[in-house]
Amino acid sequence: MLTAFNDQFSISTDGIGTYEITDQVSQSVAKSRVKTGVATILIRHTSASLVLFENADPSARADLERFLQRLVPENSAYFTHTLEGPDDMPSHIRMVLTRSSESIPIAAGKLQLGTWQGLFVYQHRHDPMQRALSVSIIGETG
Amino acid sequence: MLTAFNDQFSISTDGIGTYEITDQVSQSVAKSRVKTGVATILIRHTSASLVLFENADPSARADLERFLQRLVPENSAYFTHTLEGPDDMPSHIRMVLTRSSESIPIAAGKLQLGTWQGLFVYQHRHDPMQRALSVSIIGETG
Amino acid sequence: MLTAFNDQFSISTDGIGTYEITDQVSQSVAKSRVKTGVATILIRHTSASLVLFENADPSARADLERFLQRLVPENSAYFTHTLEGPDDMPSHIRMVLTRSSESIPIAAGKLQLGTWQGLFVYQHRHDPMQRALSVSIIGETG
Repeated sequence: MLTAFNDQFSISTDGIGTYEITDQVSQSVAKSRVKTGVATILIRHTSASLVLFENADPSARADLERFLQRLVPENSAYFTHTLEGPDDMPSHIRMVLTRSSESIPIAAGKLQLGTWQGLFVYQHRHDPMQRALSVSIIGETG
Repeated sequence: MLTAFNDQFSISTDGIGTYEITDQVSQSVAKSRVKTGVATILIRHTSASLVLFENADPSARADLERFLQRLVPENSAYFTHTLEGPDDMPSHIRMVLTRSSESIPIAAGKLQLGTWQGLFVYQHRHDPMQRALSVSIIGETG
Repeated sequence: MLTAFNDQFSISTDGIGTYEITDQVSQSVAKSRVKTGVATILIRHTSASLVLFENADPSARADLERFLQRLVPENSAYFTHTLEGPDDMPSHIRMVLTRSSESIPIAAGKLQLGTWQGLFVYQHRHDPMQRALSVSIIGETG
């Protein structure tokens, strides 16, 4: 039988960086009982985003962060959207360059991620925040 | 009952910039009668793209545009794909750096966008154009 | 009748560049018998990615490659994740800037790509490799 299932969760972030959410999404898949289908994950913010990234060696995520800081520096002279602080406009641009939604096939009840892939929230702002995610799972439960 | 619904629409664009299409996609969701599921939106072009962006303050979209003009300048000396004009190759690169498809969960018959999120077509070419989008909505109508 | 179908395939890559997989995904759609729905494609790696790109003129893909080589040069002095070679960290960053999953509506049994759109694996590493993809197709077969 095909089913459509929605779930919501949020995470606490403590500054710029990547926060793995693979386990939370896997739990949503388990709750849905879907064996064959697809999970869609949306981050409901414009200054945080999603990436599927290497989940083994944190040095790769640190280098990614160094790259993005150089590519989209705070206090760029041409920014006009600055009322919410110097990290706000860079956070919107970094969100655009990464992703807001990811869709991951499910087979045999498992997310079909590769061996080294994990799903991460990429928080782009300095202050501690709550970040909300919406999950949709559709597929065959049989 | 689960249903799968397709819709198509197009928008007129008048130069480089962002054009909000949240209302059009919400209308497709209403037509589908899906209450729990997911909406997938594809832009059917390679010189325009999709972004989920802040829909309140246009200064943020103006700064994003300034960033992309600096990152991918027209008339870069190493471009060879120039027959269709100086804005053509930058438009393909800007499309690659943003998105072609977005998938948005639906709950209680509503797109689960965050408070500040809107879905925008990002047109990357100067001339007035028609841009075609395809929408797929799958889910439970009950 | 709605159905959920999974498929897997892999491709051989011989160095950095784009490899079209539109035909393979269209074959998965045909096997699924879905007429109205959506195909979700995931590349199961963190140093290769997906792009929907112009499939007519290879000069556009060559210019995209030149752009990415300039944007994310090998041997950047600040990279610390270097054990797997100088092309490894740039490959992760290039993956983040492009896409890991794409979702494409299906209508009348066909992927709703635009006239000039093809789906490509973007391999970001030099050595010959096998790249695995997972496909999920959900929709109405009637």
